[in-house]
Amino acid sequence: MSDVKRIEPRTLKGFRDYLPEAMIPRERLIETARRVYRSYGFSPIDTPALEYLEILTGKGSDETDKQLYKFQDHGDRWVGLRFDLTVPLARFAAQHIGTLGTPWKRYHIASVWRGENTQAGRFREFMQCDFDTIGTLSPAADIETVLVINDLFAALGFDNFTIRLNNRLLLNGLLEKLGLAERSVPVLRALDKLGKIGPEKVAEEMAATADATAAQSADVLKLAGLEGSNDAVLSEVSKLVAGSPRGEEGAQKLRDLLAAAAAAGVPERRLKLDVSIARGLDYYTGVIYETFLNDLPKIGSVCSGGRYDNLAGLYTKQELPGVGASLGLDRLLEAMTQLNLIEKVSTPAPVFVVYFVESRLHDYLKLAARLRAAGIGCEMYPEAKKIGKQLQYADKRGFRAALVAGDDELAAGTVQVKDLKTGASTPVTLVGDALEQTLRTLLASVEP
Amino acid sequence: MSDVKRIEPRTLKGFRDYLPEAMIPRERLIETARRVYRSYGFSPIDTPALEYLEILTGKGSDETDKQLYKFQDHGDRWVGLRFDLTVPLARFAAQHIGTLGTPWKRYHIASVWRGENTQAGRFREFMQCDFDTIGTLSPAADIETVLVINDLFAALGFDNFTIRLNNRLLLNGLLEKLGLAERSVPVLRALDKLGKIGPEKVAEEMAATADATAAQSADVLKLAGLEGSNDAVLSEVSKLVAGSPRGEEGAQKLRDLLAAAAAAGVPERRLKLDVSIARGLDYYTGVIYETFLNDLPKIGSVCSGGRYDNLAGLYTKQELPGVGASLGLDRLLEAMTQLNLIEKVSTPAPVFVVYFVESRLHDYLKLAARLRAAGIGCEMYPEAKKIGKQLQYADKRGFRAALVAGDDELAAGTVQVKDLKTGASTPVTLVGDALEQTLRTLLASVEP
Repeated sequence: MSDVKRIEPRTLKGFRDYLPEAMIPRERLIETARRVYRSYGFSPIDTPALEYLEILTGKGSDETDKQLYKFQDHGDRWVGLRFDLTVPLARFAAQHIGTLGTPWKRYHIASVWRGENTQAGRFREFMQCDFDTIGTLSPAADIETVLVINDLFAALGFDNFTIRLNNRLLLNGLLEKLGLAERSVPVLRALDKLGKIGPEKVAEEMAATADATAAQSADVLKLAGLEGSNDAVLSEVSKLVAGSPRGEEGAQKLRDLLAAAAAAGVPERRLKLDVSIARGLDYYTGVIYETFLNDLPKIGSVCSGGRYDNLAGLYTKQELPGVGASLGLDRLLEAMTQLNLIEKVSTPAPVFVVYFVESRLHDYLKLAARLRAAGIGCEMYPEAKKIGKQLQYADKRGFRAALVAGDDELAAGTVQVKDLKTGASTPVTLVGDALEQTLRTLLASVEP
Repeated sequence: MSDVKRIEPRTLKGFRDYLPEAMIPRERLIETARRVYRSYGFSPIDTPALEYLEILTGKGSDETDKQLYKFQDHGDRWVGLRFDLTVPLARFAAQHIGTLGTPWKRYHIASVWRGENTQAGRFREFMQCDFDTIGTLSPAADIETVLVINDLFAALGFDNFTIRLNNRLLLNGLLEKLGLAERSVPVLRALDKLGKIGPEKVAEEMAATADATAAQSADVLKLAGLEGSNDAVLSEVSKLVAGSPRGEEGAQKLRDLLAAAAAAGVPERRLKLDVSIARGLDYYTGVIYETFLNDLPKIGSVCSGGRYDNLAGLYTKQELPGVGASLGLDRLLEAMTQLNLIEKVSTPAPVFVVYFVESRLHDYLKLAARLRAAGIGCEMYPEAKKIGKQLQYADKRGFRAALVAGDDELAAGTVQVKDLKTGASTPVTLVGDALEQTLRTLLASVEP
């Protein structure tokens, strides 16, 4: 190979390698999400990374169309890499819902690709982690979505987080009441800029693009700006939408949602009505969820979703309402790193077996096999090198304990158990299950 | 949406949707593989689906190059979808080995794409599940690879499987001894056709392309054709390669490998020397593994690998020897289906909560939350429909038990536990943990 012209090993801009110390927490996070989704009866599905281009461009916005990785395949078909898991879900549901039946609950954890500008720390390949309940209009499914989000973050070790709730019926009801229902798109487009340009400019835009009077835009801005306790907001909201059946329905649904979530054990402090969250112009039609980490609000919502009326209208005439949310895996991992919730470990096995005396290979293999059979993961160093070098390796990788045994120990039927955090060594007999017990106690112990 | 032109929902030829009943066993299989890999200290990594095209075409054969999904991205760079996990591993190792250090053990479970002919039930997107130990020449790593394969299949519920073993040093040693070392490529190319064209035609081809004498090709064919017990094969092999240091080393390594695997607890019947397996013309340089299910030999090897001298020579001057194997996930799932090792279940939660009395929603939510907190997955039907309809749904999905409670039961503090396999119902109190205990017993029980 010495005369070979070498190729520079590198990844494409916007793409990442995951080294073990990043991948181990990522797998843990995914496993936790999977466990929580499953505990509610959500089933896994998977769809192809590549789809017919027409499937992907059918619903996407101009922006997502522009970001699509698309090309002609070996059969000259135009194909594209999925840019989210919602379009594949819609296509999948249209195709299979007859087999699956409704209500149908699925989760989908998979990579998506977007050729977007990488300036702002954005990546072109990232993982989405969605769960949805399809084929039911029942508020019970809306409630369950809140419970899943709450369980998910609790299972990940968070306590201090807030699920912000809104319902699109409130604003739709108010617009209807104000006679602006037909002009909801320009109204929403203006309202969407509230954070950026402030209420006065929004009112100006509403006047210009939706022909809204000052009184009308004042009411819309009042609704979007409501703050305070959940009870206070609900009371104000109810006044604003009074007389609009749609608006009153939205307020009642939020009231029911809060009561049911509390009954199911979600701490009240974690639920916050927030009439300002909108999530897109028209996809969501009912309840809307956003989830914020109170210790790190700047990173934005880490789990968002809502209710929609018609998932798969582009692919089937069957109306499929649904509700669900998506966990922002990469953003959450970034947050967990910043909050020191991730232990720095690059080995998934906690115990290290020193390969000390070359002729004793079989003994070390037996020792390691015995521990694995007892459910204790362990790695044996593959070469009979100096102990110091092996322990250095073990330290760097983050093992919790090392087993050291030379001829003397093995002849006596013992092994030294070395705590790699304190450096202390204890001789333990190989008879009975003293070794397993010692290791289990050590592995369960908190840091000294 | 009624006036929208609909798009036919379909997947590309050679690509598959995974419905829950296929995805649940697939996730279980992946989890088992992950658990076994981890128990040996293999760490997870991930790499981008898209790589620079030059990275992917550097090492691939003409065949893989032709099958590559390649295109120009938004920046007019030529890129391609990975067609295996070995090339990305080589690129990854070349790039990061300084940070990772050696020896380094990784697993990688991810999708790969090949635009191949879909005639023979082949797919254009499939998952690979590889593990490798990089940066050591030690036979201990070769041995460990056998142990991982053995543990993996045992953990998946197989007992009757055979790991076939060979070592490339045997044939290389023999060729060296015969003076054919320089002509090993045409010799191997001819030998590779043994199963298809038979020994006489192979000898003819060896004479034509490698200038091999009748005696030379007879010896090569004798080695490749050896059969019998491991001891008998080893004894014959030793005679054939006697005098060639390389060949003798190969025989000794196989002997050591068998002894060490037995010492570590691998049943002897699962290990079989097979001098005929070669696995490619030049990639593997030492031990070679193939794994067959004895009840389904026709599907071929379900876990294959071997030792290589230089993983990443295309990308770095650092020599990185290694050893590893790849689990054929899709082939194995197909086999497990054929062997009835997969239970037909399309829900990952075992318990179903009937939403019976609409006004009792909070009670059902509490009941479900209580069971989930106890680690018992349960799904609540989202609508207060007729019991019959809900139980039909539960049956179709494969739930194990249903909880039914109306006003009377809830007022009395009880719930009916319905065994969905026998149809029997038992009232259980909600006081204490009788319900959890009843369900745990039911879920642990074998089928009636």
